[in-house]
Amino acid sequence: MLDSNYILDPWSIIEDKFDQSKMIDSESIFSLGNGKIGQRGNFEESFSGDKSIGNYISGIYYKDKTKVGWWKKGYPDYFAKMVNCPNWNSIIIEINNKLLDLSKCKIISYRRELNMKEGWCERKVHLETSDSHEIEIKSKKFISLKRENIGVIKYSIKALNSKLKIKVLPSIDIDVKNNDANWNQPFLETIETLTEKNFSTVSSKVINSDFEIATFIKTKYFINSIAIEGNYIPSNNKKLIGCSSTFDLNKNHELSILKLGGYVNSNDTPKKEFKKIIKHETQSALKQGFVNLLDENKNEWSKIWDDSDVIIEGDVKSQQAIRFNIYHLNQTFNGKDPKLNIGPKGFTGEKYGGVTYWDTEAYCIPFYLGTKDSTVAKNLLKQRYDQLPNAILNAEKIGLNHGAALYPMVTANGEECHNEWEITFEEIHRNAAIAQAIKKYLNFSNDNEFMINKGIKILIAISRFWEQRVNYSNALNKYVILGVTGPNEYENNVDNNWYTNYSAKWCLEYTNETLKEIADSNLDHYKKILNETSLEKTEISKWYKIINNIYLPYCKDLDVFIQNDGFLNKDLQPVTSIPIDQRPINQHWSWDKILRSPYIKQADVLQGFYFFEDDFSKDELLNNFNYYEQFTVHESSLSACIHSILASKANDLNKAYDYFVRASRLDLDDYNKEIKQGLHITSMGGTWMSIVEGFAGLKIINDKVYLNTKIPKQWEGYSFKVNLKNRKIEIKVNHEATSVKLISGDKINIVINDTDTYLKN
Amino acid sequence: MLDSNYILDPWSIIEDKFDQSKMIDSESIFSLGNGKIGQRGNFEESFSGDKSIGNYISGIYYKDKTKVGWWKKGYPDYFAKMVNCPNWNSIIIEINNKLLDLSKCKIISYRRELNMKEGWCERKVHLETSDSHEIEIKSKKFISLKRENIGVIKYSIKALNSKLKIKVLPSIDIDVKNNDANWNQPFLETIETLTEKNFSTVSSKVINSDFEIATFIKTKYFINSIAIEGNYIPSNNKKLIGCSSTFDLNKNHELSILKLGGYVNSNDTPKKEFKKIIKHETQSALKQGFVNLLDENKNEWSKIWDDSDVIIEGDVKSQQAIRFNIYHLNQTFNGKDPKLNIGPKGFTGEKYGGVTYWDTEAYCIPFYLGTKDSTVAKNLLKQRYDQLPNAILNAEKIGLNHGAALYPMVTANGEECHNEWEITFEEIHRNAAIAQAIKKYLNFSNDNEFMINKGIKILIAISRFWEQRVNYSNALNKYVILGVTGPNEYENNVDNNWYTNYSAKWCLEYTNETLKEIADSNLDHYKKILNETSLEKTEISKWYKIINNIYLPYCKDLDVFIQNDGFLNKDLQPVTSIPIDQRPINQHWSWDKILRSPYIKQADVLQGFYFFEDDFSKDELLNNFNYYEQFTVHESSLSACIHSILASKANDLNKAYDYFVRASRLDLDDYNKEIKQGLHITSMGGTWMSIVEGFAGLKIINDKVYLNTKIPKQWEGYSFKVNLKNRKIEIKVNHEATSVKLISGDKINIVINDTDTYLKN
Repeated sequence: MLDSNYILDPWSIIEDKFDQSKMIDSESIFSLGNGKIGQRGNFEESFSGDKSIGNYISGIYYKDKTKVGWWKKGYPDYFAKMVNCPNWNSIIIEINNKLLDLSKCKIISYRRELNMKEGWCERKVHLETSDSHEIEIKSKKFISLKRENIGVIKYSIKALNSKLKIKVLPSIDIDVKNNDANWNQPFLETIETLTEKNFSTVSSKVINSDFEIATFIKTKYFINSIAIEGNYIPSNNKKLIGCSSTFDLNKNHELSILKLGGYVNSNDTPKKEFKKIIKHETQSALKQGFVNLLDENKNEWSKIWDDSDVIIEGDVKSQQAIRFNIYHLNQTFNGKDPKLNIGPKGFTGEKYGGVTYWDTEAYCIPFYLGTKDSTVAKNLLKQRYDQLPNAILNAEKIGLNHGAALYPMVTANGEECHNEWEITFEEIHRNAAIAQAIKKYLNFSNDNEFMINKGIKILIAISRFWEQRVNYSNALNKYVILGVTGPNEYENNVDNNWYTNYSAKWCLEYTNETLKEIADSNLDHYKKILNETSLEKTEISKWYKIINNIYLPYCKDLDVFIQNDGFLNKDLQPVTSIPIDQRPINQHWSWDKILRSPYIKQADVLQGFYFFEDDFSKDELLNNFNYYEQFTVHESSLSACIHSILASKANDLNKAYDYFVRASRLDLDDYNKEIKQGLHITSMGGTWMSIVEGFAGLKIINDKVYLNTKIPKQWEGYSFKVNLKNRKIEIKVNHEATSVKLISGDKINIVINDTDTYLKN
Repeated sequence: MLDSNYILDPWSIIEDKFDQSKMIDSESIFSLGNGKIGQRGNFEESFSGDKSIGNYISGIYYKDKTKVGWWKKGYPDYFAKMVNCPNWNSIIIEINNKLLDLSKCKIISYRRELNMKEGWCERKVHLETSDSHEIEIKSKKFISLKRENIGVIKYSIKALNSKLKIKVLPSIDIDVKNNDANWNQPFLETIETLTEKNFSTVSSKVINSDFEIATFIKTKYFINSIAIEGNYIPSNNKKLIGCSSTFDLNKNHELSILKLGGYVNSNDTPKKEFKKIIKHETQSALKQGFVNLLDENKNEWSKIWDDSDVIIEGDVKSQQAIRFNIYHLNQTFNGKDPKLNIGPKGFTGEKYGGVTYWDTEAYCIPFYLGTKDSTVAKNLLKQRYDQLPNAILNAEKIGLNHGAALYPMVTANGEECHNEWEITFEEIHRNAAIAQAIKKYLNFSNDNEFMINKGIKILIAISRFWEQRVNYSNALNKYVILGVTGPNEYENNVDNNWYTNYSAKWCLEYTNETLKEIADSNLDHYKKILNETSLEKTEISKWYKIINNIYLPYCKDLDVFIQNDGFLNKDLQPVTSIPIDQRPINQHWSWDKILRSPYIKQADVLQGFYFFEDDFSKDELLNNFNYYEQFTVHESSLSACIHSILASKANDLNKAYDYFVRASRLDLDDYNKEIKQGLHITSMGGTWMSIVEGFAGLKIINDKVYLNTKIPKQWEGYSFKVNLKNRKIEIKVNHEATSVKLISGDKINIVINDTDTYLKN
């Protein structure tokens, strides 16, 4: 266990030390968002220390042109990157004509709290300026869940030892740029700025795109809670849009600024209505005042927790961590807007461009299925359905045809937009994750209408992909899949990745089964599908042929599946042989050294044991888990959760707990020394799975909830509770007896699976 | 055979049609150079058609920053790119106030000739301007072999049907940029421009580097061959540095401009001496006048041809082609400056950045060994020796140590500077090409002093590389080499590439043999080497262990070596099954489709049969040749020559001839539809090898010349002659009897090898 910089608390993340070098890390931890807009936890006032200002709008991206050494056919033209927008948070403070900058003050006390229960962040700083003025700053802010374009800050300054002249410039900072630009070029251009006393807007356009946004702020001043007017002098800094006001503040008096701000964007609002919407929203919010707005937001969070809280008594470290994960998942994506999706770092950083990966289907859909109305998962899948033409085009680019679909590995709008061939062209297993998510959604919802009209078309297109992507090896007398990258990205361009080959087989089986079910239940539907997709019987019979003859590498001596051809030729030293100062290996080893090493970035064969658990016996699970665990470095955030779940299934609860802690506190304890780049949002869905699918062993199939309840030793004597929308399930262990109780909510058939019958014997 | 745009002629390349769309291709063909500076065959006057202005100085490069999707450890920071310099060729012409632009004139006749024997290019155009003035333009130019900083143009305009007012601006065009810049950024900045009547200079600095260059021009006017003065009005175009002069030209009179121009650069000349050198060189050249300068240059070319001509009687297509290859090799690199090397496109285009690849050792050194003083090859190898510390650093970057060296795949100064991991990290076979070149040089020169002081240190460092780069496979009970790219770049990150594994074995053997020879002949030298390289006996014994236990994939059923693990799992359809409209596949197929196809870009297993010919029997050659030829698409310019040589050795002379024609006329007939990007200079060395090592079967070992003379049917009844420095060898076939004659030059022992004893039986 690593030391955390944050105080343990069941509902809050608390920082009580001001360590300048850590502020950029904390910016990630204290990020706020409402699924539509979000921001890193930047200070409002000037800060000359290490920082990374970030404000983002989901779905607003720049197409950053791809450049590679030598162009190869089929490369995507661009990498989509979420745009770092003008910063509406900025409140520049001058005290007696001196800029307030925490990095230049003596900090007497400092406390920042992210209150996850109520959804706000508060910072209190008692400081002494370089000319010996003692002041207290308080800032409390939140991004409104109800008013999705708006964030709210209440910022106060109290004069503690002298009378002060305070100049305040609440502004929109347009001197903001993406850190991830390929060539330091700007992504946004300013079209127009406008300032009228306490109200400012900045209109901007994403370069080379149709996206437009408007950033706005509106402010109100108070001294000792009594509203006053400012004198509103337009800023003479062209990069800070707003008006400054100057106040004389007596000793022990407090100046407060209520600042509303946020964005409208052309994805949601016709450009010509920007002004009207901004005016209406700011006026309506300002009328409410800070306290009402905060209460309104608390209520929204209260509903979220009611549907999704996981209560772990007696283990505050786990309790804080799982809530931190659930909290950030909800800040990033809430399913309200069917156009949006889940970026691997949410609004907390620019790495991965804020766009969609296989993470959504493989690691996030279970969480949203479990804790939100099932339309949320449905909308995510519908997005993939709507992007099917692009996926077909993508498969055509790599030479396939006849409606075969390869979903993009990275996408903003359905087009592939990453630029490394070993990822884009080769991580084809993502297709299977989409089929998996369809199956999970169907198990949960029984939404046959979705399957008949949309899901089956995705499945057919994916099956056509696998049919054309395999080839027959005369040497092996088997179908093989050559040139892939599996979930373990520390292998590239390998042949017969077991996970990929098994996934292909599974997709073909699932498509065949589904087609058969549709035919059995409604022949007209079946015919309509054949007709609409031009599906031939010869195709289906080819699929059966592949299912029965696909090569699945296996080593008899070891009795394990082989990750890919050639794996056993490696220098098979366990991870424990790597000197500790060379970890993580991706920060110390060259790419070719990593590739030819046996080290596994994240579950690969084991990802298959997670997805296809019903197909394998417990012995098979144990053998493969033990074999591959020794080579796994978990340098992907998506690794620990799967290992935790499988360790639960293998009844190794100490291990399951260790992996759970690693997964859940990855960011809070900064395991990989990288949180300044942002949080691992999509892996947070995996953390939730570690509890719900791992410890609780929960599986929902049709109307039954299967439970295979495990309690880690650390939780014994206590209970843990899982909120699954309106159902609250309590799991309790006393003296080795497990009790499972539906505390409230719709009745369900709970099937306790202590005999592990869900595993094939 | 494709149709050529150029007229067949034994000594010249002649273009007699003005096809605007082909001018950019012809710019490559008509490129000029002297091994130090060079240029594409751009028109001097304005040309608004498709063009690519290019002037380059060998050894002057820009470090273009590398950007990749996600950075991985060990990537080079930059890609070195030869700088496109200010264009000293520009002569802007206005006729009666209208810009002369061939793309806007009626062309009555057009002829351009590259005279390879004398080393000049002449263009004659009879045209009618849009306002009906008929004129004749003549331009004759060359880059001086003797005065390496200088090129010379004589440009004439004759008024054919009317009196004309002609404004001439001989200038330096600074509006020139590299086409291969990653982000369209400039590589050069202008420091100073200076114009004094008929003399102008531009001083420039390569951005982010210490390189500085100065471009200069000096002009002289003539009317009907009588010198006259211009009126010299400074140009008002800031991008064209020079003075214009205006002349009234009577009907049938001719205005001529003698223009000298070129570059000095900080690699050769201290910056503070630029002005002095320019002044001295221009004055001295101008004094000579055009005719003397041209004669001087003819003499230099005459010496080159005396040492390197290949005469093929009766087959003008081959004759023209082989001379075109020899000519461009000499224009690109002549070995005079030990700092320089050979870029794959010479001065004819920007692709590949003009820097050094394994091409130098694998395809060019034999030509320079055969046709130049052996110091030329020695200097190329000495360059690698001088860069050994960089190669050791490069190996350290990929995790090796103890003096192991990995020479860069692409380099300007010894540092690796390409940015695709599958090339940089994985095409490790380049190390073996350097060892091969050392062996060839030693065979040729018996320069034991070089071996003892330099060569053996390279060999030891390379052997240490292989020792650390192999690993022991318990599954195979053999040493394996994982994660490589072989010469066939249509496979990436494969295991046990036969060619690479065999090369590793060979390098270790050659190092061991060499060490033994040194020890046998002079124990002091041996001890000194052990001492200087800290070489331990345990290392040498490890090398023997690897030699005896390295895995060399072989298929008994097919009786061929297997290109790499997994090759036999591919869909093994021959090249003939690819629809013709999908060739070349690299312009039609996505990278992953290419990777999982069986198609081979260039000789891979067969490259081993070329390098290590003595190790294999003729049957082995035939089996492997026939097996791999069917999958080879020859989409590298380096492929056909090796196939030609091997076909010669296999006595399939028709095939050898076809491959020779393909290799030698690759650019003249534009097989791959890409010559506008520049010529394939380094493959031209391979073309020469096709004749000298292929048809002639020539091999020089110590004092003996081994010949295994073959005459393609097309040449029967004729002779072909090869000039190898002062030796001229004639090979003649009449009625199946081959005669070999040393026409002149130092006596040698010629061993005719008709029994193929050079092949192991």
